[in-house]
Amino acid sequence: MSNFGLTRLRLVKPYDVAFKEARSAVRAHYILEQAEVFESLGEALSDCTLVVGSTALGKRDLHLPLYRLEAAGQLVKEHLAAQGPAALLFGSEKFGLSNEDMSHCHWLLRIPTRPEHGSMNLGQAVAICLYELCRDADAVAQRFDPAPTAAAEDSERITGLLLDLLSRSGWVQERTSQSAELKVRRLVRRLGLPASDAEAWLGILRQILWKVKQDTGNK
Amino acid sequence: MSNFGLTRLRLVKPYDVAFKEARSAVRAHYILEQAEVFESLGEALSDCTLVVGSTALGKRDLHLPLYRLEAAGQLVKEHLAAQGPAALLFGSEKFGLSNEDMSHCHWLLRIPTRPEHGSMNLGQAVAICLYELCRDADAVAQRFDPAPTAAAEDSERITGLLLDLLSRSGWVQERTSQSAELKVRRLVRRLGLPASDAEAWLGILRQILWKVKQDTGNK
Repeated sequence: MSNFGLTRLRLVKPYDVAFKEARSAVRAHYILEQAEVFESLGEALSDCTLVVGSTALGKRDLHLPLYRLEAAGQLVKEHLAAQGPAALLFGSEKFGLSNEDMSHCHWLLRIPTRPEHGSMNLGQAVAICLYELCRDADAVAQRFDPAPTAAAEDSERITGLLLDLLSRSGWVQERTSQSAELKVRRLVRRLGLPASDAEAWLGILRQILWKVKQDTGNK
Repeated sequence: MSNFGLTRLRLVKPYDVAFKEARSAVRAHYILEQAEVFESLGEALSDCTLVVGSTALGKRDLHLPLYRLEAAGQLVKEHLAAQGPAALLFGSEKFGLSNEDMSHCHWLLRIPTRPEHGSMNLGQAVAICLYELCRDADAVAQRFDPAPTAAAEDSERITGLLLDLLSRSGWVQERTSQSAELKVRRLVRRLGLPASDAEAWLGILRQILWKVKQDTGNK
């Protein structure tokens, strides 16, 4: 809840021992301290104009519309923007919401877990629902542009240094040097070398070349 | 992982005591049983063509592209469809990924938690990332149509029964009956009564009317 900026935790008849011993995450203690405790679901929901129950079941005859979380999140956000307080209602870890609990709900949501393993850990289910509420569809389009790739000038310098090195190490033969040059140039072009890394690679190759020249008497 | 149909859990140098005592959720024991344990991150990632690290930090100079989860999920799905194995890499609950861990990553993702409380519970962070991978954007459009509302005929029957009841209980006076009828008709129209509930409401009102008639000597 604290991760996603929600603060109003309401509990109905919590199991006292567990609730008193509950320890919040670092920096989230205020949520447990401010949690409101109610004797009945009706009291807990009294000021809410929308009540959405969470269920892992898809088949039971629920007499209520059942939305996947993707759609449910949108509906809840629209309600919050236009009409005010909404409650997300979660049942106990073990039993979920009872039919009586669900009779307080306007509709139900389901996290799209696979049918063979639908039931979730309560903390994870809550986290996923709150993430969906904070999820920003526009962020999908916010991709970084791929890093600009090196200009041909830099690729060509790197190609030249590599050819010099390969010639000195015997990989490039005199009679195949033309095809070797094409081969190395294509290899370098296909790297997609980021422009900002070109200097580092030039430095690396110059250093190796310096060493090779030194070892072979700077021929 | 089991909720969202992922099966390949790889662990690098897990804390032995915790790992041996780890208990899986009901019906998810096979994931822990099949978990692969590695001595180094390099070995664990060897067959992966994309490695995405998860971080709560937005500001540290990471030397890597950093995507919000909404965009990251899309990129991972595209990679899985086109290119094959991808790894989502999570650090320890306490310290997250080290700079060395991150040097194995192609890019990083960030769950859009609020800046004041960015760090998440590990299990919840994993659950949210896997939900994003399984999330179906098309499902947002899958809203149920609102239930069809009752036909005017039924609304009119209900209005008539209410007026009869209200007349017998003294709420409708002879001299104001015309305006009362308009008022009740408007109230009923504004209910947005679902067509499938019309019979139930008619039955309820007829039952009350029967009782009132009986008590007042069936006048």
